[in-house]
Order: sequence, then C-alpha cells, then structure tokens
Amino acid sequence: MVGIGERRGRTASADSDGLVDRIGQVVGSKGLILDPRDMEPYLTDWRRLYVGRARAVVRPASTPETAAVVALAAAARVAIVPQGGNTGMVGASVPDDSGRQIVIALGRMNRIRKLDPLNNTLTAEAGCILQQIQEAARAEGRLFPLSLGAEGRCQIGGNLSTNAGGHGVLRYGNARDLVLGIEAVLPDGRIWDGLRALRKDNTGYDLKQLFIGAEGTLGIITAAVLKLFALPEEVVSAFVGFERLEDAMVLLARLRAALGETVTAFELIPRIGLELARRHLANVADPLAGPHAHYLLIEVAGSGRDRDTREAVEAALSEALQAGLLSDAVLAASTAQAKAFWRVRETLSEAQALEGPTIKHDVAVPISEAPAFIRRATTAVEAALPGVRTVAFGHLGDGNIHFNLTHPAGDDPKVFLARQTELNRIVHDITADMDGSISAEHGLGQLKREEIARYKAPLELELMRRIKATLDPLNIMNPGKVL
Amino acid sequence: MVGIGERRGRTASADSDGLVDRIGQVVGSKGLILDPRDMEPYLTDWRRLYVGRARAVVRPASTPETAAVVALAAAARVAIVPQGGNTGMVGASVPDDSGRQIVIALGRMNRIRKLDPLNNTLTAEAGCILQQIQEAARAEGRLFPLSLGAEGRCQIGGNLSTNAGGHGVLRYGNARDLVLGIEAVLPDGRIWDGLRALRKDNTGYDLKQLFIGAEGTLGIITAAVLKLFALPEEVVSAFVGFERLEDAMVLLARLRAALGETVTAFELIPRIGLELARRHLANVADPLAGPHAHYLLIEVAGSGRDRDTREAVEAALSEALQAGLLSDAVLAASTAQAKAFWRVRETLSEAQALEGPTIKHDVAVPISEAPAFIRRATTAVEAALPGVRTVAFGHLGDGNIHFNLTHPAGDDPKVFLARQTELNRIVHDITADMDGSISAEHGLGQLKREEIARYKAPLELELMRRIKATLDPLNIMNPGKVL
Repeated sequence: MVGIGERRGRTASADSDGLVDRIGQVVGSKGLILDPRDMEPYLTDWRRLYVGRARAVVRPASTPETAAVVALAAAARVAIVPQGGNTGMVGASVPDDSGRQIVIALGRMNRIRKLDPLNNTLTAEAGCILQQIQEAARAEGRLFPLSLGAEGRCQIGGNLSTNAGGHGVLRYGNARDLVLGIEAVLPDGRIWDGLRALRKDNTGYDLKQLFIGAEGTLGIITAAVLKLFALPEEVVSAFVGFERLEDAMVLLARLRAALGETVTAFELIPRIGLELARRHLANVADPLAGPHAHYLLIEVAGSGRDRDTREAVEAALSEALQAGLLSDAVLAASTAQAKAFWRVRETLSEAQALEGPTIKHDVAVPISEAPAFIRRATTAVEAALPGVRTVAFGHLGDGNIHFNLTHPAGDDPKVFLARQTELNRIVHDITADMDGSISAEHGLGQLKREEIARYKAPLELELMRRIKATLDPLNIMNPGKVL
Repeated sequence: MVGIGERRGRTASADSDGLVDRIGQVVGSKGLILDPRDMEPYLTDWRRLYVGRARAVVRPASTPETAAVVALAAAARVAIVPQGGNTGMVGASVPDDSGRQIVIALGRMNRIRKLDPLNNTLTAEAGCILQQIQEAARAEGRLFPLSLGAEGRCQIGGNLSTNAGGHGVLRYGNARDLVLGIEAVLPDGRIWDGLRALRKDNTGYDLKQLFIGAEGTLGIITAAVLKLFALPEEVVSAFVGFERLEDAMVLLARLRAALGETVTAFELIPRIGLELARRHLANVADPLAGPHAHYLLIEVAGSGRDRDTREAVEAALSEALQAGLLSDAVLAASTAQAKAFWRVRETLSEAQALEGPTIKHDVAVPISEAPAFIRRATTAVEAALPGVRTVAFGHLGDGNIHFNLTHPAGDDPKVFLARQTELNRIVHDITADMDGSISAEHGLGQLKREEIARYKAPLELELMRRIKATLDPLNIMNPGKVL
C-alpha cells in the first residue's frame, strides 16, 4: 500500500515546475492519476510491446478541460500522449520511458451528445466505447457500421485517430469514411469546432481529414459527428471452400454484380488456419465436409427483402460452383451457425499464438493483386526459412492480408523469432514492390515509424513533416509517433 | 486575322523575362496559346461573372511537362491558375485581370491510364472528361457514379479539385469519397506520386485530402485512382406529390429502411418550379393528375433483382400513402418516362432564368433541418421583399437546397437584383444559424472568398492560411481564390 502522504510527497518532488498541480486544479482529483500502480494500465500497450512511464495520467471530463490541460502542457513545453481505449497495435497511445510525458486519457468524456435519426448522424465524445455507439444507433433502428475485435473496449476517438478498419470496410469504408465532422483540441490548447453534420460542405480545406488517422500527432479529437445507416434486417452468412486464390477475386466481382453493395464481408481463411484453430481451441468446427485449400467467410446484409437476399446469394454461389470458382459452400441456417462460421475467422490469431510466437504483417495491395501477393510472399519466406508456416488470412475483399508466420514445425521458435527483421523486410519489400501498404489497418505508431522511411517517398515524408511543424511547432503532441 | 509575325512580336515584347519562351520550349507550340482570341475561352468562367486576362495559356501534354512549367513559373514568381473544363460556378478557374498570371489547362492530359475491373478502380489523367470516364467504366460493366450537369465538358481534375457533388451523392458520396489516390504537381514543381489503388492504407497523414477540394490553391491534381462500383441493372424512378415538407424526411428514412443504400436520388421540386418549367419550356409534363405543394423525384437503383426492387419501391410508397406522408405517386413505366421525370428536375434552373434574373444560393443543412430551413428562409426573404418568388429545389436527400429567388411578378427585375447582397445575407445568415454551409457543392473560388470570412470561425480560417503558407509559401498557386 502506498499512503496518501507518500504519494503526495512523490508528486510534489516530481512537480518542481508546478505543472501537475496546475493541471490538478483544472481536472480535480477524479481527473488525475499519479500513483504508479494506478497509472500502469495507461503505460503499456495492448500487445505489451512497449512499456513507458509518465509524469501523470490526466483524465479530463470535458473538451474545455482537455483544452486547458493542453494549454498548460504547451506553456511548460511538456509532451502529451493522447489515449483512447489503448487497444492499438503499434504503440501509438503509450508514453516513452522518459517519465516526462503526460498521458491524456479521454475515457471520462463518454457522452453521446446527440442522435439525429432523420439526419442519420450521431455526435459522440471521444471517450465513448465503440460498442456503446453501436448500441445507441441500434436502439434508434440505425447502424453504425464500424466493427472490430476490440469494440467492447476501444474508444471512438482512438478509432478516428487511427482511421480504424475492421469488418465493415468492404461495404462502409474505413473510420475516415464514417465521419462528417470533428471537434479537436489543437497543440496550443485552442478548440477547433468542426462538428458539422452536413453531407455537403465545400467551403475550404477539409481540415478534419488532417486529424483523422494522424494518431494524435496533430491534436486531440474530442468529439465527432458520425454517419449512421439503415439497419440490415437479416444477414446471410456463407462459408465457401475453394482451391485457387485467383478464383476468389472473380467470385467477389460476380457477387457484387449480383448483390451490389450488400456484400458486407469477404474474409479469407487458409486451410492451415482452420487446422490450427481446431487443434488449439474448443468449439471450432469445419463447416464443410471435405478439406479445401482456402475458405471464404462471406456476409451479405439485406434490407427488408431478406428472402430475396438469401435466394440471390444461393443463386450466385450455385453459378460460381458451376463455373468452377468454388468447390463447396454452405449458408448459415441460423444465427448460431453464422456465429460458428465467424468463430473460425476470429480465432485464427489466437490459434496461431497457441502454436507458438508469430511474426505478423498487416499489409494491403490492390484487391486484384492479393492472390499474386500471397503466392509471391509465401514463396519468398519459404525460400528464406524452409518449413515456415504461412497463415495468410483476413479482409481479402479490401486487399488487406494479415500475412502471419509461424515457426517451422519441430524447430526452436527462438531461432525463428531471431529472424523477424529479415522476414519483415522480405514481406514488406514485396508489398511495396506491388504498390501496397505495409500498414493497412494498424497505423505506424512507434512500431513502424522508422520502417516507413524505407517505403514512403522522401517527398511524402517531407510533406508530412511540414504539416506537423505547421500545426505543432513545439512538437509536443505525441512526439516520436508516426514521424 | 492576326499574323504569325504580329503574334510573335507581341509575345516577345510581353516576355521580357523570357518565361513564356522557356515554357514554350517545354510544351512546344501545341501546348502554348498566346493569341488573345484563342485564349478567350480560358479567361471567362461558365457563368460569365468573371473575365480575366493571362500572360499565356499553357496546355501541357504530361505530368512532367506540367511540373516543368510550374517550376519555371515558381522560379519567376509568376502565379498559376490551374484549369479543367472551366465549368465551375464560382470563378475558381479563371485568372485575375492583371494579365500577369499563367493559366495551365489540363485538357490535353486525357488518357485513361488503367482500368482494373477486379480492383474496381480506374486511373485517369486530370484532363479526362467526366463522361469519358463514365463510359470507360460502363464498357467494363462498372459504374463511376459521379454525375452532374456539366459531365460532357467538365474534367475529372476539376471535379476533384472542387470536390464535386451532383446527382449520386446520396448513395455514393461526393467526389472526395470516390478517390483512392492522386498524383499532384506541388507549387514548387515537384511531382507527388500518391497514385495508390488501395482500400486501406494507414501509413501517415492522408495527404490527398488536402488537394481534393482545394480549388487548385495547393497544387495541381494531374491524375487520380477512382473507385468503381457494380453497374445497377435497372433503375426505378418515381415521381411523388406531397404537401408538407417534413413528411419528405420521414419518407426518406422509411425508404432507406426498406431499400437500404439503393436509394440513389431524392430530389425536391416545388410546385412553382414545375409551373415555371411548363410555362417556359417545351416537353415538360406534370406526371401527376392533381396539383401538389411539392414533388420528389426518387430513384432506386437495384442490382440483379430488379423486379423485387420495383415491387419494394411500390410497397414502400403505398405504405407511405397510407400513412399520409404523400398524396400521389407514379413509377416510370419506361426509360422514356423516367427521362420525362428528370426533365422536370433538370429544367428548373433554365425555366427560372427564362422568367427573369435569379438570385441563387447553394446551401446545405443537416437533412433533418432542411424543411425548417426552407420555411424559415422563405419567410425571411418574403418579409424583406414581399412577393419574391422562392424556388427551393435540389438534393433534399443530402440536405442540399438550391434556394433560388425570382423577382415579384410584375416588378422591375433590376430593383430585385439591386437587393442581391441583402438577400444573400439573409439566406446565408439563416444557413449559418442552422449550422449549415453557404457553399454545399460549388466551392468558394472568387465568388464567396470574402463572404466565407463572415461565417467560418477565425481559427478555421487561420488553419487554412497556415496550410496554404506551408505548401505554397510563394503564394503562386491560384492566388486570390478560396482564401
């Protein structure tokens, strides 16, 4: 136990310039965490790749409080690390190990300010949990389509700051595409109110785009106006077995021709992924009778004419079967069966982790190039490390492949892990050569901050740095991340 | 006739620093217009509100030529005016009257570089006519959904630089939403290759967003990767008569619940608009038997299951009729009838112009506020000028109203026109008070450059100016536009 006196003592000694004291006057005791043990969850990232230290964790209750804290930090030239649910994968939301940075965690700002069903918009504060927003929309018969594994914990401010992807991108786009307006605290502590709820506004530069996906390096998003959609009445889920990767891309084009934008998910699962999931986890079933080289989890979400949707999916898959594009397919007969399909998809990472340490890649290429990428990258890593096991899965319909590696069966995983940098280089070089992205969903943060310099044109890096210097001349907003 | 010798003579005398000569060496004689009469179409805007002069009109044939010309102009500190099809409404694409600026017209760069049906993308040079792109997509069974009145003449570079709206926004978004990557020439003449064809790419700031909608003030867009969509197989068009504006918003929500994102158009036509069109133009029919206060032109574009779509539209409209949301409705029985519906919508501007001079407003408010806006603005302009005739029409489903005024019947139109500034002020003040935009589709250009300062927060204007100063420190890229 650390006594109040002790804590106070340590705080005072570390606060020779009085900054933390002044911040405390703004946010009150509820908004200030100084005890190292209480700070801990804010200092380590989701994957535990980074462990930092902080002078204080500040939890403001409102946008004006956030602004006041930023202004105080800016005046003292103290760096700020904005943090949402802290579920990011690249260390963007944790402080460095200097102990001088201040974490601003937005979790107390979790009010849904407005829901306008006729405008199909919802205005949320940054600290709203994604699931809370989904549920608020659903209660009004609307859909907020952003959906990802961490949705029970991640916050919308972080989702927007990282331009989150997830399951709904194929139909609804990335987080960036789901925003009409934002409110942000700038690095000098001023509040920019860009909370417009308009479908059309051509009155100058679209400044919100700068803050979305900037991983907190240009300011702190404190609220946003989000787009809502019609709630699909029923979802048709199909599990498809097929043999040639190229056929999947033709199948996707056919499904879209037949079903338009109602195709919501088009997820790739390799045979080895299904096998690992069945080996290591309970309640994972192979939905199809025979083995197939690859599988697709396809979801079509219809509105109002569901029996038609189901028939149309059946017809499209039958035609594809006739055309030799797939070997077998089954439609979920119940919600439970659809969940069982998704369980295969969602346990892939965990199953692979249970097999041993993994070397992960989150890449995107043009959709049409995805099969060629998987083949080329697989050949290259197998040449470098014979026997390496490739689990290439994910959002095939977006060209986004989680190209993850497991050590050769029987080998020492440590030998495999020692070659991580080399294997990353092989996969990312091929990605770049195919005009792809080495971080499709997860951002740069600390993890890929240096590596991106190898792949992004110097001119583009220069433009990014010029924008950063213009908006954050003191370099106090999440320094050491992205660039 | 101006002889070659004469022209040369004038050129030489006006080219004391040799800039035009150096540019001519880059682009050749095909790429340089110096004859005042040949320059004329490039110096006047579409609405003939602005007539400028130019030192030269340059028509580069490639991105490297464009870059070289910009570099020469930058070195000479000579301002550049980028120009596409020159169909903008706010004077953004014409030079000032100094005669010192150089127009760079992109029309010769009209190559479609690539069409990838499986990636659903098309890579076009800036000078491609919008219609050319639509047709290239259609030839591959794909839809490029950007569609607007000037599509036979406007160029994609201009569409992106102005973030064009048009008819497809309700379903497919504005031009900004249809772009995956761009290539741009920066104000210093360097080429930024951001021609990525990826659905997901989280590797730093999304720089393309800066150039889209910047009206050529931050650089010249020279090419873009555009998103394509499934081609709808048949379109169901409905013409609806109704009495209370608020009911339209409820109807839109119901249609979306029943039909999802397949609702493609939701256009408002007021009774007075239909009357003016029938009075002044041939081949305009009232599709409904009795008179109604307002009309909607609704379009639903289904994929593959068209009979279902038609039945679903009929069912949804029948239910709305039962619920008292509308008075009458008719579905087009043929393409010819659908065209007749659209003729009513598309002749509104022309019909109003034939009635006399018009005072136009292109505003947007939240969709849910559109009825209140129309009522409030109508009351206000009628109070200021009794008898003024309001024709409020347009993209109601986007909250985008063309709130256009005609002089009181019997009055002198000149007296009406003399009050333009006052009436603009009334309408725009109400728009701003309802958190709307005073330029929904058309941009700022020269026309609204000063007026926007009244409505946009000083902080936002400051941020825009800081971005401009960072990317264009010499202020040579389309100065005097936007900000």
